[in-house]
Amino acid sequence: MSRAKVSNAIIRRLPRYRRYLGQLQVKGIKKISSGELSELIGYTASQIRQDLNTFGEFGQQGYGYEVDKLYKEINKILGLDREYRTVVVGVGNLGQAITNYTYYYKIGFNIIGLFDKDPEVIGKEINDVKIMDGNLLEDYVRDNAVDIGIICVTRDNAQEVADSLIRGGVKGIWNFAPIDLDVPDDIALESVHLSDSLHALSFMIKSKSEEEE
Amino acid sequence: MSRAKVSNAIIRRLPRYRRYLGQLQVKGIKKISSGELSELIGYTASQIRQDLNTFGEFGQQGYGYEVDKLYKEINKILGLDREYRTVVVGVGNLGQAITNYTYYYKIGFNIIGLFDKDPEVIGKEINDVKIMDGNLLEDYVRDNAVDIGIICVTRDNAQEVADSLIRGGVKGIWNFAPIDLDVPDDIALESVHLSDSLHALSFMIKSKSEEEE
Repeated sequence: MSRAKVSNAIIRRLPRYRRYLGQLQVKGIKKISSGELSELIGYTASQIRQDLNTFGEFGQQGYGYEVDKLYKEINKILGLDREYRTVVVGVGNLGQAITNYTYYYKIGFNIIGLFDKDPEVIGKEINDVKIMDGNLLEDYVRDNAVDIGIICVTRDNAQEVADSLIRGGVKGIWNFAPIDLDVPDDIALESVHLSDSLHALSFMIKSKSEEEE
Repeated sequence: MSRAKVSNAIIRRLPRYRRYLGQLQVKGIKKISSGELSELIGYTASQIRQDLNTFGEFGQQGYGYEVDKLYKEINKILGLDREYRTVVVGVGNLGQAITNYTYYYKIGFNIIGLFDKDPEVIGKEINDVKIMDGNLLEDYVRDNAVDIGIICVTRDNAQEVADSLIRGGVKGIWNFAPIDLDVPDDIALESVHLSDSLHALSFMIKSKSEEEE
C-alpha cells in the first residue's frame, strides 16, 4: 500500500509505539502481547493490532510481538534506518537548544550546517559546526543535498526561510516558529508550536479549577 | 457548561484561533467573518462557529466577529487573563531554552524558580533567577504557591520530579521529558515530545518519497 494513505492519527501513534518498545528493550523484555502493550500505552489492543497490521504481519496469534524485532520494524517504518543531512536556521536560545538536543540525541539527524543573520554569531561554532550567513542557506542546501531544515527563526522570517530551504531542495521542515508555514505537497512539514502547547496547558488548568468549584 | 467537557480537539484548536487573531490585530484588521477565518486557519466555517459557540455568543449573524473582542475573549477562555507562578526543573540545554523562551515570551508565565541537581550549576542565575538544589523543589513549590512546573530533566528522573511538584501543590505540568507521566486527574498535564515530533517528520519524508517513486 502507499504510505501516503496512512492517517495523521497513525503518524502520531507510531513514534509512541517506538518509545515504549525502546523502554521495554532497556528493561530486557523480549516479547509482549497487544493486551500488555495496550495497558502500557493506553490505546486499545485492537487499535494496536490494527495500526501494526497496516504495515505488515509483525505479531503471532497467541504469542504476541517480539520486542526487538517490532522495534526495528517500527524504526524502518518511521524512516529511522537512515541518516538525514540537517541544517538549523536561527541559532538563538531555542535554535541552540534544538541543535544540542538533536546533537546529543544522535539518531540519524546529523546537523551539518547552522545559519543565522546576526553578524555577531556568524563564524562561531556549536559542537564544531560553524554558524554561516543566512544568505548562503539556499546554495548550501543545494550543494550539500540537505534533507531537513529546522526553522528556529522569528515568525516574521519563517516563511522566507522555508522558501529558501525548499528552493534548495530539502525534503522536510521541522518548524519551531509560531506560524503555519505554506509548503508544497511534496514537502514534509512538522511544526512544534510551543506557545499553543503552553496555552493548551493554561486552558486545562483553568478547566480543572472550575471543575472543582 | 463545565469546561471539563470540552474535547481535546477544541483544546488544540483554541490556541490556533488566538494565534491567527493576534496576527489580524497586528495587521490592524477589525472584523472578520467565519468564512474569512476559515480560509485563514483551514478549519471549516461551521467548525469555527461551532467551536466559538461552545463558549458564548461572540459573532453577529451577517457581521462576523470583532477581532479585538474575540481575541480578548479567547484569552479569557484559555486562562491567559491571569499570571502563573512557574518553576523550571532541569536547566540543561533544553531547560535553559525553555526558560529563556518563557521569559522573553512574557505572557503571564512568570518563572520564579529554577532547579537542578547538578552542583556545578546550582547557585548560578538565568535572567536574575537563581538555580536552586532540586532537593528543595517540593518545599519551594508549597511555600511559594507555584502553579506550573516545567519538567526538562531526563526520562529517568521525570516521574520523580512530577511527584515532587504535585506533592508541593502545582496545578499543571509542562513536560519535555520523553515519557508519559502518571498524574492525578486534577493535575493538568501537557507534554511536548520532541523526539516523537522528529520521528513523525521522518515518517512523512519517507512516505512522500515513496509516493513519488
